[in-house]
Order: sequence, then C-alpha cells, then structure tokens
Amino acid sequence: MTDATLTAVYELHGGDAERRAHALAVEQSHELPTELAPEHTRRSSLARVVALDEPRDDYALATIEYPAALAGDELPQLLVLLLGNGSLQEGVRIVDVDLPTDLLSRFPGPRLGVEGVRARVRAEGRPLLATALKPVGLSVVELASLAYELAAGGIDIVKDDQGLANQHWAPFSERVQRVSEAVARANADTGGSAVYLPAVNPPVDRFEGRLAEVRSAGAGGALIVPGVGGFDQLRRAGEVLDGVVLAHPSFLGGFTASREHGIAPDVLFGLLLRIAGADAAIFPSWGGRFSFTREECERIAARSAAPLDGIAPILPAPGGGMTVERVPELVDAYGRDVLLLIGADLQRGGDPRAAAERFRAAAESV
Amino acid sequence: MTDATLTAVYELHGGDAERRAHALAVEQSHELPTELAPEHTRRSSLARVVALDEPRDDYALATIEYPAALAGDELPQLLVLLLGNGSLQEGVRIVDVDLPTDLLSRFPGPRLGVEGVRARVRAEGRPLLATALKPVGLSVVELASLAYELAAGGIDIVKDDQGLANQHWAPFSERVQRVSEAVARANADTGGSAVYLPAVNPPVDRFEGRLAEVRSAGAGGALIVPGVGGFDQLRRAGEVLDGVVLAHPSFLGGFTASREHGIAPDVLFGLLLRIAGADAAIFPSWGGRFSFTREECERIAARSAAPLDGIAPILPAPGGGMTVERVPELVDAYGRDVLLLIGADLQRGGDPRAAAERFRAAAESV
Repeated sequence: MTDATLTAVYELHGGDAERRAHALAVEQSHELPTELAPEHTRRSSLARVVALDEPRDDYALATIEYPAALAGDELPQLLVLLLGNGSLQEGVRIVDVDLPTDLLSRFPGPRLGVEGVRARVRAEGRPLLATALKPVGLSVVELASLAYELAAGGIDIVKDDQGLANQHWAPFSERVQRVSEAVARANADTGGSAVYLPAVNPPVDRFEGRLAEVRSAGAGGALIVPGVGGFDQLRRAGEVLDGVVLAHPSFLGGFTASREHGIAPDVLFGLLLRIAGADAAIFPSWGGRFSFTREECERIAARSAAPLDGIAPILPAPGGGMTVERVPELVDAYGRDVLLLIGADLQRGGDPRAAAERFRAAAESV
Repeated sequence: MTDATLTAVYELHGGDAERRAHALAVEQSHELPTELAPEHTRRSSLARVVALDEPRDDYALATIEYPAALAGDELPQLLVLLLGNGSLQEGVRIVDVDLPTDLLSRFPGPRLGVEGVRARVRAEGRPLLATALKPVGLSVVELASLAYELAAGGIDIVKDDQGLANQHWAPFSERVQRVSEAVARANADTGGSAVYLPAVNPPVDRFEGRLAEVRSAGAGGALIVPGVGGFDQLRRAGEVLDGVVLAHPSFLGGFTASREHGIAPDVLFGLLLRIAGADAAIFPSWGGRFSFTREECERIAARSAAPLDGIAPILPAPGGGMTVERVPELVDAYGRDVLLLIGADLQRGGDPRAAAERFRAAAESV
C-alpha cells in the first residue's frame, strides 16, 4: 500500500474559516468526530488541513491533504471524496486538485486527447469545429439531411443536441444509423473526415446497448452528459467506441452557477472531466447565453492543456450562443487547440452548408 | 402519440424575468431561436411560458409547459429537460414539477416505498431507524462487528457510509459478504429484521456486477449515490435487488446550497428521487452539520408523502449530525413515516449496541 496523498484546495466563503476547514477535512474523510475514531484510522484514513490562508475575514483558502487510498482507485469515489458532502455546505468551492502519479495512473484520461481528435478528423494546426443537430422535434430524415449539409460544409464534429434522446420524432436507433450514413456520405462526397457524435444519455441499464449501437452504426464517438449519467460514462464510452468522447455540461451547473460554491470551472471542465475521459468538454463561453467570464474561460483552456502526468491534453469546447463572426476573438482567447462549438448561428440564412463553409474558412484564416 | 404536457415552475432571481422566462423555455426545449425552427417543431416540441408571476422586480415565478414527449419516457432525459442547460444560469431554481399520468407511469418510482420498507424490517407505525458504518479505514472485521452491534441493538437499516467504496481497508466484495453475515447473525440472535445496505457507487461498467454481489450476499438493498452515478441507478438497484434503495445526497449539493439556484430541496429529495426509484432519501436535516431550515425539511417530508398518481410515498431520511436526544423533536417535525439517520452519536460512549437500544427506545416511545 502506498502512503501517497492527494490534495485539494477549497475556497471558504463566509468566515469562521479555521473551524470550517478542519470540519471539512473530517467530513470528507471520516465523517465522524475524530475523538470517536479508532487510533489506526486516524493514522490511515483521516484527511487534514495542511494550509490555511485567510486574506479576509470572509474568505480563506484551505488546502486539505487526503490519503490517496481513500479514492480506492475509482473515479466515483474520488468525486465523493473531493466534494461529496462538502457540496451540501454553503460557501465551499473547490479550486484546485493535485493527484499523485500512482492514483492518476488508475484513470485513463482521454483516449484520444487533442492530437488523437485531430488525427480522426484530419485537421492539423487549425481550430476544430463542432455543431449541434437541433431542434428536437426534427425527424430522422431532417436531422440526417442537416448533418449531411454541415459535414459537407466542413464541420469536423457534428453532434446531437443533448436534448435528443429517444423521443418518437427521431428514435435513437434509427437516428444513429441514418445520421451516421449521412455523415459518411458527406465525407465520401467531399473528401472530408467529419465525425458524428450521437447523444448517449439513456437509462443506466441501456448504456452499454446504446454504445454498441453507436459503434455498429460507425458513428465516430459519442456525446455524454456526465452531470446526468455520471462522470465515469466518459471513460466507458471511449473504451467501447474508440472514438471522440465529448462531454456536455447539462445539469452540471449546480457546481458552477455560483462563484462562492461548487467547483471552479477550470477544475471541472479542464481537470475532472479530463481525468474522467473526455476528449473535449463543452462549457458556456463568455459572451454567449450563459455567464462565465473571459478569464474563467481562459483558465479552462489553460487547465485543459496543462501537463498532467502523462494524461493527454483535451480540447476546451466553448459554446452556448457563439457565432462565426466571433471566431477570431475566440481563437485569440483559447488558442488553436480548441473545439469551437457553433449551433444556431449556422442555421441562420437557411443554408447550413454555406454557413459551415464560412465557419471553416474563418477557422482556417485565423 | 400523446399531446400531454408537463409543467415546471422556476423561480427567477435577479430581474429581467419576462425575457429570461421565455429564453428558458426555448433553452430547455429547442435550444434554437424560434424564428429558425421549422414550423412543425414549433407546434410539436417547443416549450412555452404559461404563467409569470412577478411580485418583485428581482423575483418571479415562471411556469413553463413542455410537451411531455420531450422526456422520451427516459429519466435521464427528463432531468436534461427540467434543468439541463438551465442549471448553468444564475438565479434559476426549480420549485415545482407536475408530470402527466402517462409519463409518470413510465417511471416505476420506489419499489417498496414506506409500506414496503416497513414490511421488510417488520416495523409498524413507529419511526424507522438507520445508521452508518464508519469511519472509512476500519477493517472488514471491525465493520462487521460494528454492524452486528448496531443491528442487535435494534437499528432497522445499517448502511455503509457513502465513503466506503472499494478501498484496501475493507474491499467491497469481502465487506458485503461479511457485513451481510453479521447482520443476519444479529437478526437470528435477537429475532430482529435489520437490513444491511452496502454503498454501491462503482465505475459505470461495474455497477451491475456489484449489484449482483450485493444480491448474492443476501444484503437487504443498497445505498446509491445519485449525484455521482446518476439518478437512474436508483431504479436499477431496486429492480435487481428487490430490496431497500436508499439515496445519499453526496455531490448533490450543487443543486441545493443556494436558495436562489438549483432545485428546491423538496423537489429534489421528495419528488425527483422518488420518481427515480428511491425508497428513502437522505438529506441534511436542520440543526445538524448542514444548512437546510426546519421549514425546508418539513416540505421534503410533505413531498415524500404527497399523492403522486400511484407512485408510493417514500421515507424522508434526515441526517447529518442528528442525535438520539433529538428524536422527539425530529418526529414532531417529520411525523412517523420517517427514516431517522443517526451515525456518530451511536458511537459515543463506546457501546454502539446500547446506544442503538436507546435510539430504538426513543423511537418507540414517541
């Protein structure tokens, strides 16, 4: 057994930091007053506060050190450990996590990562392009036609909207089959290498079956909703599909909507989802329909690319109301290792293929 | 196909309510500006605001009506629909959900419910009792011994702490086997009917295997962590185990830590987890280590018991630092259809069996 430790840094908002930091260390490990814990467990499995920086009365940074064995080499337990019960407390926000090499090696991280995704879609050096098939309510024929146009126009990754599940308008099996065929046809017609990522967010006992359908349809990967199905679905999707695994932020906003609670966006989108197995993680970019700042977004990009003990960098995927006009500004902020996600803007004007071509041209000219 | 609708009521904090309510209806359904949506999808799959009550400039209640077909009869998609992208917006909080009978009938709800759990542990009329095996770091032998004492003392439900996963101190398979045996022995020795609920929160492709182990060990159900593994694990655990399914709130706090964002606690713990298949849902009670108010807690209990189109009532399971002394006060607030969860307090004094007996006596005398 190893004596390795992992550390996490928490912002504590609202004062009383010293008491709360110690209580958090106990809560996240023993969840039992220490005077009641057998001596051997105090040595082996109790977390402790190793630093407390309190620049203001109502704000502190607490660094908590955990025996790495508490994670039990399993991602779901790592999440429980980092912020399980702590998430239920007001004013607790995780802003950094440092895992030892031994523990990191138990998590595969992204199967493809930045370079792997680039190889799949044959795109060197330039920003990568994604779009979403929507609205829900379109038929399979309509979705397949839209996917064809977008892929033929030069989009690298054509994904289902996360709201496409198994509704009667476009049932999963038929949709995956027909849209995969449409994207393959577009590739054949144009010499492109677009991939289609169906949304896979089913009842828990249908997850493997849906992945198998995606695989046999020849789709190039999947869109996973870790906030609903669990972060570990990312790893499993990569393993089964050997394709692009894209994480969608739906239902994750509980952790990010407050700046005094939850998980800092860079830790969530650039570290935890990366460890979990996403090749790219969608998040709401600044200037769109949601509320991250440009600085927060740039931090996500930095985390996505930061060295991580052999775990490959992943693509930040800013979305949420982006437009083709903003491509230069977005690339300026995120760099070229980015998956630019533009949805609705490509449907303006009624010619998605032409809009996709403009998007592609914009990305190639930055 | 049905034209049934489901409605959800959202609090909007921070002003600009009319625009935001309409934007939310679009975001949660089409996620595409309506002028770009084909006419047939505007009729079939677009949500709309059916009521907006704005008592103050910075606070409004918006009722949004969704075509029920958007949920596609699948729980993960229902969650995406109710608060997927909406969760990423500040100041959006879901406070009520009304599902049509047709859609509700697709979700089994709790397999046992209040009456079923009572039958399993042979407890009529009185409050039910639960406790947690902790701290992590105890060996299997220590956990089994503790479980024996607690079960012999009259606790109905002896559950793993949610932080017990598959760590080396007490590996899952061995723990489930030995603790199940210990609780069965306690039942045989005392004529009791306690059940043991192992924590099942593994990597996604080990979920079925762990459930099978729980079943073959003869444990009486499972503790599920829906915030980590997904809400739908509750249903599946009930289906496989035909036992008590207890939901733990770990990692769910992103939705409840703010009163201006996320999911109202009664909707989360008394409605959504109930629909999803929990027989009982743990939440942090007022007066403990966390921060719900008494009124919020009583609302959880009311929701857990409210008629729901044939879906059985479930047990609210208040926890998080409760004590035996508080049993009368807790029962006064929650009523007798409650699963009282007391952890650490039963380990004070070094005689868990005696403490369990006091807990049981307190519950029998209210």
